[in-house]
Amino acid sequence: MGGVSAAADRGERVPKQDRSRATRQRLLEAAVACLAERGWAGSTVLVVAERAGVSRGAAQHHFPTREDLFTAAVEYVAEERSTALRALFPEGAAAGDRRAVVTALVDLYTGPLFRAALHLWVAASDEEQLRPRVTELEARVGRESHRIAVDLLGADESRPGVRESVQGLLDMARGLGLANLLTDDTARRERVVGQWAALLEGALDEAPG
Amino acid sequence: MGGVSAAADRGERVPKQDRSRATRQRLLEAAVACLAERGWAGSTVLVVAERAGVSRGAAQHHFPTREDLFTAAVEYVAEERSTALRALFPEGAAAGDRRAVVTALVDLYTGPLFRAALHLWVAASDEEQLRPRVTELEARVGRESHRIAVDLLGADESRPGVRESVQGLLDMARGLGLANLLTDDTARRERVVGQWAALLEGALDEAPG
Repeated sequence: MGGVSAAADRGERVPKQDRSRATRQRLLEAAVACLAERGWAGSTVLVVAERAGVSRGAAQHHFPTREDLFTAAVEYVAEERSTALRALFPEGAAAGDRRAVVTALVDLYTGPLFRAALHLWVAASDEEQLRPRVTELEARVGRESHRIAVDLLGADESRPGVRESVQGLLDMARGLGLANLLTDDTARRERVVGQWAALLEGALDEAPG
Repeated sequence: MGGVSAAADRGERVPKQDRSRATRQRLLEAAVACLAERGWAGSTVLVVAERAGVSRGAAQHHFPTREDLFTAAVEYVAEERSTALRALFPEGAAAGDRRAVVTALVDLYTGPLFRAALHLWVAASDEEQLRPRVTELEARVGRESHRIAVDLLGADESRPGVRESVQGLLDMARGLGLANLLTDDTARRERVVGQWAALLEGALDEAPG
């Protein structure tokens, strides 16, 4: 994790750190893909190491336990996706773009990341070893999603009901992700998102109560 | 599953059928409790039979496969809860009761039934044997939840946006269920439900477009 130091022997050290960082990143991405496809029961450090083309020893150097690897993986990919989402709307949303923002927020919950996270959440509900780690992770990821939604929607949380409207939107997005787990729910989802984006627009723009 | 026949030898047969029905019901309830607590990996016909105090043979007579038992169990408990929900609002909701209806609908997704269903859904996303069964089950349970919501909310689906508003409410309810999986989310959920019930009220009562 340590930052790149501007050491004198930079020519030697930086490439090594780069390699280490690249290995770590490959492991994290392989871990999310593995979790999404095979669930918690089928996801071990060894399976992920093989998928990433990394030795078991190297994988365990980066992530001593299975819990370390998979919680770090979900957090890493969630951060990547948050960054990408902010980059899509660099100046936040004008009121006219809100529908696009809502669609992009909901899309966060329909891909392999959501599927991976869901497997981890559900496994954590049964496994005492995993539960505190995932509970913390959920809180961090949830706070960040809320912050992004507020920023991109230009929501003024000092106004009554606005905070709860944004929270409800994210809860709906999670529910839509669940509805997309076994079947392709795209067509229905678009209609629901269209309607609730309009309702949300009203809630965000209403005169202060 | 066969209905009770009004056979002449009723005195003998009905108690036997009653016993069989009671056994089946005990198995179904034990199966949901087991799935909610131990997940799919920890849920077998044998574990459920022991929990229900039924022999393995009797359990297998009622439910030849693990898939039969657990899909039937989730469907049975979902039907029980639907019936109970309709009984809570025997005449549907006057406009003034809608908040109470929304709360009761959301509550469907926060108990052991939702936890059990979630385990089954997530397992089905990885297991080819389970997937078609659970996909069908999800469609049936989803249609019934939608029908109840429309009836109890007094929603007129011929009006534009009303159908999607009700669907979005149920998606939000599922998302709130997920948010309650690892931690007690009751206080936050009540605020979100209050706000979204108000938004829904507006959508249901608006002048036709």
